[in-house]
Amino acid sequence: MEEITSRKNPLVTHMKRLAADRSARREAGEFFCQGDKLYAEALKWGAEITAVLFCGGAPEIPEGVRAAKVPADIIETVSPMKSAPEIVFSCRFPALRARVGEGKLLAIENMQDPGNVGTILRTANAMGCRGVVLAGDCADPFGPKAVRASMGAVFRQNIAEMTTAELISAAKAASAPIYAAALDKTAADIRETWFPERLVFAVGNEGKGLSAELLAASAKRVIIPMNEQCESLNAGGAAAIILWEMFRRG
Amino acid sequence: MEEITSRKNPLVTHMKRLAADRSARREAGEFFCQGDKLYAEALKWGAEITAVLFCGGAPEIPEGVRAAKVPADIIETVSPMKSAPEIVFSCRFPALRARVGEGKLLAIENMQDPGNVGTILRTANAMGCRGVVLAGDCADPFGPKAVRASMGAVFRQNIAEMTTAELISAAKAASAPIYAAALDKTAADIRETWFPERLVFAVGNEGKGLSAELLAASAKRVIIPMNEQCESLNAGGAAAIILWEMFRRG
Repeated sequence: MEEITSRKNPLVTHMKRLAADRSARREAGEFFCQGDKLYAEALKWGAEITAVLFCGGAPEIPEGVRAAKVPADIIETVSPMKSAPEIVFSCRFPALRARVGEGKLLAIENMQDPGNVGTILRTANAMGCRGVVLAGDCADPFGPKAVRASMGAVFRQNIAEMTTAELISAAKAASAPIYAAALDKTAADIRETWFPERLVFAVGNEGKGLSAELLAASAKRVIIPMNEQCESLNAGGAAAIILWEMFRRG
Repeated sequence: MEEITSRKNPLVTHMKRLAADRSARREAGEFFCQGDKLYAEALKWGAEITAVLFCGGAPEIPEGVRAAKVPADIIETVSPMKSAPEIVFSCRFPALRARVGEGKLLAIENMQDPGNVGTILRTANAMGCRGVVLAGDCADPFGPKAVRASMGAVFRQNIAEMTTAELISAAKAASAPIYAAALDKTAADIRETWFPERLVFAVGNEGKGLSAELLAASAKRVIIPMNEQCESLNAGGAAAIILWEMFRRG
């Protein structure tokens, strides 16, 4: 088994860059993951693991994958989390792609909190959602916090990233209407709204809602009705209810 | 207008204790809040504000409430958040109480993340839930992080805190069945489960689920069906779907 003891080892610095930097991930076509639980998910779902660093007992390593035993402080250097795990690893980006026009999709726009993005991917996957589109300026779904919050859903869920303009033209080209989650009382009640087979249901940034551009391009504004004392749900809660409604109605 | 410049001023140290310490909150019967938005919510919903410290422009102060202008660094001392707001304040615990047997309640058990607790209170309030019971060892709903995540729902939502044993005996005394959110495939599908008028729907700790004690006392175990690839939803997502189902069905 390979052992690495230097923080300057190229594999160590590569892992560190993957953990820290979105553009490094894009360039390498790989992303950073950590922890036993996520590793088990990666193995279970056949993620293409590219390298493994561990400081505890030797984990199961798929054939042909580079794996190295390292001191705990190297994992601490690489990991962006406060309490470093005993295993970190890199994976190739999955080939799973959300395609506008194929089934009912969820779109999230300008959602910048990586925990929210990961949790929504997890919920979408649990609810059998055909795909999640990250439109505009969202947190990287392959950043360490989003990957962690997704609890492995990144290995299984169809995802696409595009600009809001790209989403609008893709929806138009595919004849998939955009439904916009809205908060104004004139919007259609989700309980009385029919979901077509091809659909993009868009949820906005928690503070600002959807962009004017996406609202203008939407076929329908839809509200989750709520107690009049409340102004809004958090993004994760709103997405969970929308995803559940899509799932429940089949 | 009163001005305070010393960190040792008793009001400053009192606020700091309220922010930091659950037992200090219980002893004083007050809790700590911060930020413009929460202050506006407190005024709007008639929370009993007991004191205000601010370092920016003078806010609206209800009659008879002690308010003091302070330097920004005093707010920084008091506030547990990284970026301190311009206003912090204390409120008397609201008189709102969740009562087992009055309508459909949500119970959360051993949920230790204050952000989850606050978000669930927010969703419960949005969904018009009659009350939320915090059973066992939950994060303090009146701690600063939970209050913040609740987005003001703590001022409006019926809440009760009790031990699991107390919840079980209250439910029994009130003839309110306990439904337990479960993940095993033999549990009843929530889509096909009727909700009685008096109900306690219990959701467990994310890692461990509900306690054996609460499961044993439940009239029914209920599952939110999901994609077979997934093991579970996050606590906030599961609670959102349960609360939505209670709301949607009336």
